[in-house]
Amino acid sequence: MVVKSQLKYIKSLQQKKYRMQYKRFVAEGFKTVEELLRAGWKAELLFATETGLDKELGSNTQLISPKQMSQISSFKTPSKVLGVFEVPEAGEVDFTDWIVALDKVRDPGNLGTIIRLCDWFGITHLVCSTDTVEAFNPKVLQATMGSIARVDITYTDLPSFLKDADVPVFGAFMDGKSVYDTELPSFGILVMGNEANGISKEVSDVIRNKISIPQYGKPSAESLNVATATAILLNELRRS
Amino acid sequence: MVVKSQLKYIKSLQQKKYRMQYKRFVAEGFKTVEELLRAGWKAELLFATETGLDKELGSNTQLISPKQMSQISSFKTPSKVLGVFEVPEAGEVDFTDWIVALDKVRDPGNLGTIIRLCDWFGITHLVCSTDTVEAFNPKVLQATMGSIARVDITYTDLPSFLKDADVPVFGAFMDGKSVYDTELPSFGILVMGNEANGISKEVSDVIRNKISIPQYGKPSAESLNVATATAILLNELRRS
Repeated sequence: MVVKSQLKYIKSLQQKKYRMQYKRFVAEGFKTVEELLRAGWKAELLFATETGLDKELGSNTQLISPKQMSQISSFKTPSKVLGVFEVPEAGEVDFTDWIVALDKVRDPGNLGTIIRLCDWFGITHLVCSTDTVEAFNPKVLQATMGSIARVDITYTDLPSFLKDADVPVFGAFMDGKSVYDTELPSFGILVMGNEANGISKEVSDVIRNKISIPQYGKPSAESLNVATATAILLNELRRS
Repeated sequence: MVVKSQLKYIKSLQQKKYRMQYKRFVAEGFKTVEELLRAGWKAELLFATETGLDKELGSNTQLISPKQMSQISSFKTPSKVLGVFEVPEAGEVDFTDWIVALDKVRDPGNLGTIIRLCDWFGITHLVCSTDTVEAFNPKVLQATMGSIARVDITYTDLPSFLKDADVPVFGAFMDGKSVYDTELPSFGILVMGNEANGISKEVSDVIRNKISIPQYGKPSAESLNVATATAILLNELRRS
């Protein structure tokens, strides 16, 4: 069973403040929890509502009732599995491959989708501006579909990071050069901007290569969603 | 002001049943309403909470209080503008260009994002299986960001439609041929499947060309989200 102090602790981790303080986060759903464990992430607590699931996840899994699960879950429809994990230390950034950097991306669904895309296209490092939505937010985790287990995420001062990086820096802009006409190297940094405002002035100042995705036919839609634009640009990087 | 019968009528349009019965839907937000009006869609009722906005939208706009807006809105944070529009008749499908077809896509955000992508890539016709989420659902409309004004959407029996279509039919499958190695014609139909199960058996049976987006590096993520996969494939169609 979930004791009262655990209940309070797990609920507190729904807030970013406490995730930062305790360096812990909550993962929900069999798939996400299983992928984190398989990738070697450390679980501090594991709960399951069905016998069998607890066996698959390991001997320290506690069996609890669906009612108890609904008390600790952050979702309206709780999953059968929930784990409290240690926030991992991000590894060293590998500058010999492509890196994706996000400038003030705010929507959890977009960040989660971008993490899943990084995983698909073999991008192992995602660098986020400090004001990008936090990756251990439950809605982000849900949208990653377990991919977060395979992508290193670092939060940092983005303008300084880009200034210090000794590799080509590309950024997605509405008025950039067509990506179809741009020669893309085999390594570098791809910067994607905020949903409403794109890449900020201070980040834009340190980007040498401004690229865009050509619109087809007459101008119509004002922009692409940041996750779909990232999908298209990662495909362009990897197909070339 | 919003009279009681209007309130009841507008609230009823939150349900698909009544949208079908009255052939009307509710659009919220200045941008969406403005783009629909500009595209010539017929508004039966128009409401705004600020003077100035009513002038921009036309003389038949009624000025109401934010409190009244919150009563007719389907969103927690209501916009300043709401309109009741006639569901338009879909035009004839143009088989000389690419058409996108959706098989049982269920998530409103995904459908909305796909409509926005069609608009960006100049796809004027979207054909949906009858069990695809309905396009005039408020969450779909919100995700289209006004693009719905420029994309014709038809709901039909998808296997029959594909069988009768005298153009090349391509479908996205996990085990399809790499899209990078596939010669893509200048017209045809691109079929995308359900979020969890992909393209159904009965639709798959009438698809000649099965294509896929290659994963980069070692196998990791199980699949791409249907909206991001559509983004990548539309870019591939239009870049070639």
